Amino acid sequence: MLDNIRIVLVETFHPGNIGAVARAMKNMGLSQLYLVQPRVFPDPEATSRAAGAKDLLESAQVVSCLDEAIADCQLIVGTSARERTFNLPLLDLEAAASLIHQEAHSGQIAILFGRETMGLNNAEMLACNRHLYIDANPEYPVLNIAQAVQLVCYELFRTYKTPQQTPIADAPYARQSEMVLFYEHLEKVLRQTQFIIPQHEGRVLDKIKRYFNRSRPERTELSILRGILNSVEESLERNQHPSHSTHSNDDQAS
Amino acid sequence: MLDNIRIVLVETFHPGNIGAVARAMKNMGLSQLYLVQPRVFPDPEATSRAAGAKDLLESAQVVSCLDEAIADCQLIVGTSARERTFNLPLLDLEAAASLIHQEAHSGQIAILFGRETMGLNNAEMLACNRHLYIDANPEYPVLNIAQAVQLVCYELFRTYKTPQQTPIADAPYARQSEMVLFYEHLEKVLRQTQFIIPQHEGRVLDKIKRYFNRSRPERTELSILRGILNSVEESLERNQHPSHSTHSNDDQAS
Repeated sequence: MLDNIRIVLVETFHPGNIGAVARAMKNMGLSQLYLVQPRVFPDPEATSRAAGAKDLLESAQVVSCLDEAIADCQLIVGTSARERTFNLPLLDLEAAASLIHQEAHSGQIAILFGRETMGLNNAEMLACNRHLYIDANPEYPVLNIAQAVQLVCYELFRTYKTPQQTPIADAPYARQSEMVLFYEHLEKVLRQTQFIIPQHEGRVLDKIKRYFNRSRPERTELSILRGILNSVEESLERNQHPSHSTHSNDDQAS
Repeated sequence: MLDNIRIVLVETFHPGNIGAVARAMKNMGLSQLYLVQPRVFPDPEATSRAAGAKDLLESAQVVSCLDEAIADCQLIVGTSARERTFNLPLLDLEAAASLIHQEAHSGQIAILFGRETMGLNNAEMLACNRHLYIDANPEYPVLNIAQAVQLVCYELFRTYKTPQQTPIADAPYARQSEMVLFYEHLEKVLRQTQFIIPQHEGRVLDKIKRYFNRSRPERTELSILRGILNSVEESLERNQHPSHSTHSNDDQAS
């Protein structure tokens, strides 16, 4: 179960932190480490701080963008300070660990950690289904990134060892890559319908994405949504070219 | 309550770990840091890793021996790997946090962390009333010291925020310094009674200390024990010098 959970570090500045993260993970039984554009890696400092977890560094996946790290995941949880609100459900660590524990039986889970200085940016926060925060001293709540990873992994290990309610049956949630395709398709259609107008784009697409990320369509539901988009495109096509059949080879069809 | 809990680091090798410990403490609302013979301190690496917790480094107490760090404490908890058995109660982290939470209302608590390489030595383990272990991956359970401190502080903070059962009324446990005097007195008497013979000292004194550390006499109980020792000494004195009164000025009297 813990093998289905990946820790994703975005643009980590200090290689020592990467090493410390690897050790923190292995100490609590996790092994899947993803690095999105680490500033410097591999590095002797990372290797040194990893101690007995060098194998996690060797097997770490280094990718150039966040999408690559989370494409096959059904649940993406972003770490956040308590004050940042994105209209996405914000869970405390224990509640997040419980949710992750339930879903790790049926698919891949990603937990995102941001830069040492500024955490995750807005786009990265919006790529998540849930956010989690770690309750800390209000006078100084800013944890070192490897410490935050340690606490998250500790709670996952603890939850894993404690008998929980029966995990929900394989919930066939859509994968992140399918959601990305859907959003591209949706944006295309909304521009066609002129719901989105170039001069007045606003934040509507972000708000829509946030809705769908939060509501977490299952695969069958996503198929229905894609079907709806297809039908919109086709009906637009028919209206533009009424003499053509529904199954036109026109290059505007999706 | 958290102000009554002190983190004691014994002979820390890497100053960076000291800084990371300070930050981990402050993130979870603790502030009392004691350093027993740190290899190097202060140090720029400690200051750097402390980040926003430099104040804890400045107020840290640096002492030359463990006794100085714990003399006024009523409860001393040593961190231990799960496999080390000292015939002292070994608690998991949550149980330890619960116990500490209850007692911190009535006195000072010390939590001891050992050297990066070897943890606490036998004498340091025997100076404790309780041991705690952090449940971890059996394949690699050895946590970095600052990570171990982070997890302990996290559980203390969590326990502190969660409404607990009513704390036990001020339990007037003996302080460590009083126990040390008692052991010195006890050893003296046991040599006088020849319970301890120089040629065959064995480990009996360690076993006795372990018993008393585990059983945790209250102050009134310790007074009784000291009174017993006094009476033994006086009776020995009377037997040796039957013509003297009980209140002899003989220099053998305690």
